Amino acid sequence: MKTEYRSIGLVGAGLIGGSIAVRLARIFPSAGLLVHDFSPANAACVAERHGAATMVTTLDAMAECDVVFVATPVATIPQQVEVLLRIDGSDAVIIDTGSAKTAIIELIAQSGVDAARFVPGHPLAGGVSTGPGLATGEMITSRPFVLTPTEATGAESLAKARMLLEKLGAEVVEIDAAEHDRLLATGSHLPHLVAFALAGLPGAELSGLLPSSFRAIAAFAGADPQMWSDIFRANTTELRRVTEIFKKRLDLIVAMADEPAPGALLEILAEAKSRADALEDD
Amino acid sequence: MKTEYRSIGLVGAGLIGGSIAVRLARIFPSAGLLVHDFSPANAACVAERHGAATMVTTLDAMAECDVVFVATPVATIPQQVEVLLRIDGSDAVIIDTGSAKTAIIELIAQSGVDAARFVPGHPLAGGVSTGPGLATGEMITSRPFVLTPTEATGAESLAKARMLLEKLGAEVVEIDAAEHDRLLATGSHLPHLVAFALAGLPGAELSGLLPSSFRAIAAFAGADPQMWSDIFRANTTELRRVTEIFKKRLDLIVAMADEPAPGALLEILAEAKSRADALEDD
Repeated sequence: MKTEYRSIGLVGAGLIGGSIAVRLARIFPSAGLLVHDFSPANAACVAERHGAATMVTTLDAMAECDVVFVATPVATIPQQVEVLLRIDGSDAVIIDTGSAKTAIIELIAQSGVDAARFVPGHPLAGGVSTGPGLATGEMITSRPFVLTPTEATGAESLAKARMLLEKLGAEVVEIDAAEHDRLLATGSHLPHLVAFALAGLPGAELSGLLPSSFRAIAAFAGADPQMWSDIFRANTTELRRVTEIFKKRLDLIVAMADEPAPGALLEILAEAKSRADALEDD
Repeated sequence: MKTEYRSIGLVGAGLIGGSIAVRLARIFPSAGLLVHDFSPANAACVAERHGAATMVTTLDAMAECDVVFVATPVATIPQQVEVLLRIDGSDAVIIDTGSAKTAIIELIAQSGVDAARFVPGHPLAGGVSTGPGLATGEMITSRPFVLTPTEATGAESLAKARMLLEKLGAEVVEIDAAEHDRLLATGSHLPHLVAFALAGLPGAELSGLLPSSFRAIAAFAGADPQMWSDIFRANTTELRRVTEIFKKRLDLIVAMADEPAPGALLEILAEAKSRADALEDD
């Protein structure tokens, strides 16, 4: 399998795309990078941080790329991937980075395009602030990069994607797309939903008197509404499912607080604490 | 009004009690400190950090104190305050630090003791880890110290409490006890309930793949279950009220995510973001 890269494409010059570019420049300094973003400023920022990148205005320019990363907002990923897969003569492997996999995979399948060269992916990285200015190589090397191949995914494309990501220093984890969406609903989408719901609560205006726990959780609602609107809309079924379970746990704990004896409440809080402590030590 | 202190009492040598002791040693180095805790090790830790404190085994020993702080777990505060108020010949002002005021005030009123010398208080400080080892003076000076006087509170006792706290460097804020409990239900008790509920969710065992938002919120469930059991039980009515509002907001956002157009979802997320950003700048 070829392990040298002539040129790599990047569609979406944000925090994740920028971080991939930083890492590409470090590991493959002689490979070219073609960058496309609807915002020329973002594309220019990433091109500058890469050092040897070219900004391009159409996806057709990426025909010759060995691999193309699609790191745009979730709602635009399916269309971008479809356009890339339909470019005549291209044999590029397409890796996306969207936080909701099933919806993306289904939309691409519905388009009728041959998806053998598409490898659905998701680096479990990010932050409250977005944009390429905060991109770091560590964002790629310090967190798992999940791949969720489907029956349509070609074995060779998957192997190529995995090899490139591992060379970039990512810890590659392969899981089922549905399992990814369940995990992310619990591990990321619900926490952000909680933050958005909490930050908007009546009473939160008394900001000078708000304790640090409220502030720390509400801070996640400082994230980009457009990005999170896309994610919530792309993973609504799983988000609703885990939200129902979460609401039942809230009710259960409040009901236990109202019991004459504290035993059941103490037990459920102690169980949660042992899980929290295990995460802390992880 | 007397502004010199002969001796000050401290019942409860934990994170908050220890922080008060550190600050007392700094501002009133010639005043004695009498420390009581069911854990001799905690009392010894605070006595050592204060530098000129005496450990005492009964509350009667605090008869001569000018002021006594009660910084024990919420469930034990009413009884400790009652015992202190009943000490023959004592004219000490008693300030507590519990996170739920109405329940404490009502239990003391029900005991029939004259509560004129009791000033209900709550420094809006703390952390996931408890115990006197992490006590700092900054915990008292950097956060508001709320007082919630009632009709039973004597004007002179309130003035004495306020003066001492201000000399210690605290920003004293007077609000109604019911308003305090509503604010804390939103600002602290619900965020901790959310953390305990989230940390115990099924699926959270896949710890290696859990994103940072989940970890950051669940970390608040690393707090002491006994302390939070006490608080949830002392403020159940307000906690239930705000939890119901919170659950409705979760439902609303999920329902908006399922609408054909993203407009309403984007709007509610953007509103929450502006609140989160305002807190950040605060």
